[in-house]
Parts: sequence; C-alpha cells; structure tokens
Amino acid sequence: MEGNRLTESKDISNPFEQKAKQQELIKEKMANVKHKIAIISGKGGVGKTLVTVNLAAALAKGRKGKVGILDADLTGPCVPKMMGLKGHKMELGASGIMPARGSEDIAVVSMDFLLPDDEAPVIWRGPLKMGAIRQFLGEVAWGDLDYLLIDLPPGTGDESLSVLQLLPELSGVIIITIPSEVSQAVVKKAVTFARQMKVPILGIVENMSGLVCPHCGEVINVFSKGGGAKVSKEMGVELIGSIPMDPKVALDSDNGVPFIYSHPDSPAAEAFKVVVERIEGQVKK
Amino acid sequence: MEGNRLTESKDISNPFEQKAKQQELIKEKMANVKHKIAIISGKGGVGKTLVTVNLAAALAKGRKGKVGILDADLTGPCVPKMMGLKGHKMELGASGIMPARGSEDIAVVSMDFLLPDDEAPVIWRGPLKMGAIRQFLGEVAWGDLDYLLIDLPPGTGDESLSVLQLLPELSGVIIITIPSEVSQAVVKKAVTFARQMKVPILGIVENMSGLVCPHCGEVINVFSKGGGAKVSKEMGVELIGSIPMDPKVALDSDNGVPFIYSHPDSPAAEAFKVVVERIEGQVKK
Repeated sequence: MEGNRLTESKDISNPFEQKAKQQELIKEKMANVKHKIAIISGKGGVGKTLVTVNLAAALAKGRKGKVGILDADLTGPCVPKMMGLKGHKMELGASGIMPARGSEDIAVVSMDFLLPDDEAPVIWRGPLKMGAIRQFLGEVAWGDLDYLLIDLPPGTGDESLSVLQLLPELSGVIIITIPSEVSQAVVKKAVTFARQMKVPILGIVENMSGLVCPHCGEVINVFSKGGGAKVSKEMGVELIGSIPMDPKVALDSDNGVPFIYSHPDSPAAEAFKVVVERIEGQVKK
Repeated sequence: MEGNRLTESKDISNPFEQKAKQQELIKEKMANVKHKIAIISGKGGVGKTLVTVNLAAALAKGRKGKVGILDADLTGPCVPKMMGLKGHKMELGASGIMPARGSEDIAVVSMDFLLPDDEAPVIWRGPLKMGAIRQFLGEVAWGDLDYLLIDLPPGTGDESLSVLQLLPELSGVIIITIPSEVSQAVVKKAVTFARQMKVPILGIVENMSGLVCPHCGEVINVFSKGGGAKVSKEMGVELIGSIPMDPKVALDSDNGVPFIYSHPDSPAAEAFKVVVERIEGQVKK
C-alpha cells in the first residue's frame, strides 16, 4: 500500500515491535474521538453506506469539523461517491495523513482516495487489509472528533474483525438490514458476532422498508415486510428505525449529496431523524 | 472447521505437501465438471445469489443431477435459504463429502450446512477461508456435472481470489450489477479483477432494472437507470440481460423457490431466459 511510505515509525524492523508501535498510535489518535460507532450488516447491499453518510451528515449539523467517516470497505469503497468527494486525495500533513473533507467539514478516509481510478480493484488477502485499517486508524490526523463512524464491509470477515479488535472502546455497532427473510438469516449472524466480540449493539436499522409508488402513491413492499421487527424481537435488539425506499434517495447517492440535506422533508429523511435521535441518546448513556 | 475431520489425506504432516495433495484432489474432482462459472459482483446485495440460484434452476431443466452450486460466501451464505434447503446437512459418503440436493437434483455445498443455526457467525480470517474453499472444491463428491456455479461474496477479497486461483480452467465469470452510479464504480473493479486474473467475462447482468408498480402498472426506476449499459460500453463487456425488480421474486427467494419455476411468465423470468441462453451460448464457444 502507498501509505507504507507514510509510516512515521522509521527504525522498527521487528514486525511485532512495529505492530505494538502502531497499536500505540491508534490509542493515541483514538483518545481524541469521543464516540466511535461501527456500521455493520450481515448481507451486502442493504444500505450500510447510505446510513453511514446520512448519519454523519445529520450529526455534523452543529458539529462542524467534529465528525469523521472511516470507509473500512477496502475492496468496494462507496463513501467518497456518496459524499461527493470522488477524485479527492488524502495528503501528508505535519500530524499525519490528512483526511478529505466533505460538507460540514466531515473528515473522510477511504481506500478509494488511494486508487488511481474506479477501475482499479484492491486484490488483497486478510493480513494486508488488517495493515491498511491499522494505518487508517493510527496514522490519519483525525483530530478532535465527537463522532467517528466506521463503515464496514458486509459479513464478519477480516475488516470487521480488525476494527472490533483494534477499538476495544467502541461505543457500539449499528446493524443494518432489509425486510426480507433472506436478509434476516444473515443479520442474526451480525448480532451474534457483535455479542461475541463484546461490543454494545446500538440498534437495528431496517432499510428499504417499502416503497411509495411515485405515480399512484400506493406502498409496494419490494423486499417483503416486517423483517427488521422480527429479528429485533427474536434477538432482543432494539429496532431504532425503518427507512422507506425512495428513487430520489438513490439519485442523491449517485449525485454525492446526503438525502437528509437534499430531501429533508421526504419520508426517508423523517424516518432517519428518529434513527439519529436514538443513536445520540444511546451513546450518551 | 468441522470438515478437517473429513480430510482424506491422513499421513501428511507437512503443510506444503498437504496443500499440494489438496490441489491434486481439486484437479481430480474438477476434471469431471464440464463448465465452471463464477458469479461475482463489486458491491453486495445486487442479486448474485438470486442469479446463481435461478441460473442453476434453468440449466438443470433437462440436466437433472448435472448442475451444482458452490456457495463460496462463507460469512453470509444465502444459497440454502433461496433453494429451500435450510436445515439440510452434508454427509460423509464413500467418495467424499456429499452435497445437499435441491430441486432437479441440484448439488449444493454451503458453509450454512455446517453451522449449528442461523445465528452462528463465521468469524474467520483469510487463510481459514482459503482452506474451506479448497476442501469444498476438492473433497466434495461433486460427481459428473455439466455446470458448477460458484456464488462468490461481494468484492475482490480472499474467497474470490482463492476460487480464481484454484480453478485456472474456469469457463468464466458473470458479473452482476444494479443500475445505480454508485454500483457502477464498484462493478468496474470487478471487471478489472477478472481481467487481471485472466478469466473470461461471460457478461454483465443488470439486476433490479426498474420495478413495475403492482398497483398502477407504471415503471419505477428505484435504483436509477441505464447503469449496466453504461458500464458495458465503457468497459467493453457484453450486457447479457436486465432483470426487473419484482416483489414476487423477493418472496420466492424467502420461500426457497427459484422464481423461474414459480413465476415462469413474469417479466423477470422472461428476461432471465435471455441470460441463460446467452450463457449457454458463451460456454459452447
């Protein structure tokens, strides 16, 4: 990875010492971040990044420069696109790697900023991924943050494991799902995963909860109905919100604008406000 | 992994020798499979498993017992649920691990069959995943197959890399995407990934291409429009089909029935027939 050249530690040849040094750096940098929240899911494509970006946008209102996003999906990073930051780069500053800055000065770190173009894949096995996440946490000049949101790739693989192990003081995880039964089976694994890692679960968010037809106004349950509530009950985890589908929301993501900014009065944004309030309430506990 | 107990090789203590032995087993087992096709995507949740299951169902018509599915998504396996095989187990037979059997005798191998329940997550780093995939390929009694479809997890991580490296004689990959721009950026990585691995690309399938409102019949472009065609043009890969969204299809998946069986006259099934024909045409080349 390019970032290797940016490593502060110069005289360390022993990999164990290097790891310990990195762990120290992570501790140091993360001490200035009040609340660290990871966004996870069992299945992919359920809207993890959508929730991450809009949650950051909502939290950043009145907290300018105090919110950050770590896009920990190394092979399929989507945060820059959804934040309107495509083509931005991270630069080396006096205090470490400087994150890109989105609206409301949201600090964004993503593998996407290190790739030459959209076509370049990141073909990495686990240990390299672990190393990249260590660098993103420990060598980025995150500064003083109120919230750092970490967008993890789907599943319970290397990246998720790394983040949860590297950040024992995580405020908690938010678990994203969609209403279908197929998704429920997988989201249960995510709940168990968080519990086994002894990380608090801030709640489940059900995304793609029905679609209002823009032509006739009727509700269409595209991915079935009620899955979030069912998992919530079966696993004993609070359902903190159900966000309806909206073609405008997909367009907002494509255009790089959080929908809570561009369509603040849409049913999706209204539902999202409840999610934000509950999360703010949860981390204060 | 449980399967370790099922390993045929008994006297091999050297891990390099064991790997070589496993590679031999894979070669042996895979020699009896005519066409091996991997289904990949950049982003998760775009319908990889939906395409895999329905493609298998379509190919198995008139090829009873000659089609197999390897569910290589180890942390979020969904094939058993969508094939109506939840709760099935794989057993040890004379010629290796016996796959579960779905409709038309489709052979199915999935990590899901090895887990105690839906709530159990597979929290594995890369090397363990590689080992599991080696076993699934080399120690399962796949038998003589016309088609083996391999459902890979999203992204270009360990599982995808393992399968493409272990099966140099792959007929090709099918790349699944959805119309949104966010998805396009990531699908390009999948195209480059396949090219770098020197695997033929059989085509791109665009899933979730518009939704016909069941109430008023108007088309809703839930995830924007035209992304598949755009990627196809920009990357020089054939778009072999566009499958519309359909709430009935999501229900079929939840009920464990391929929609091409339960709703053969639906627009989704009609679109899917074109995909199947093109793939059959491609592998004959």
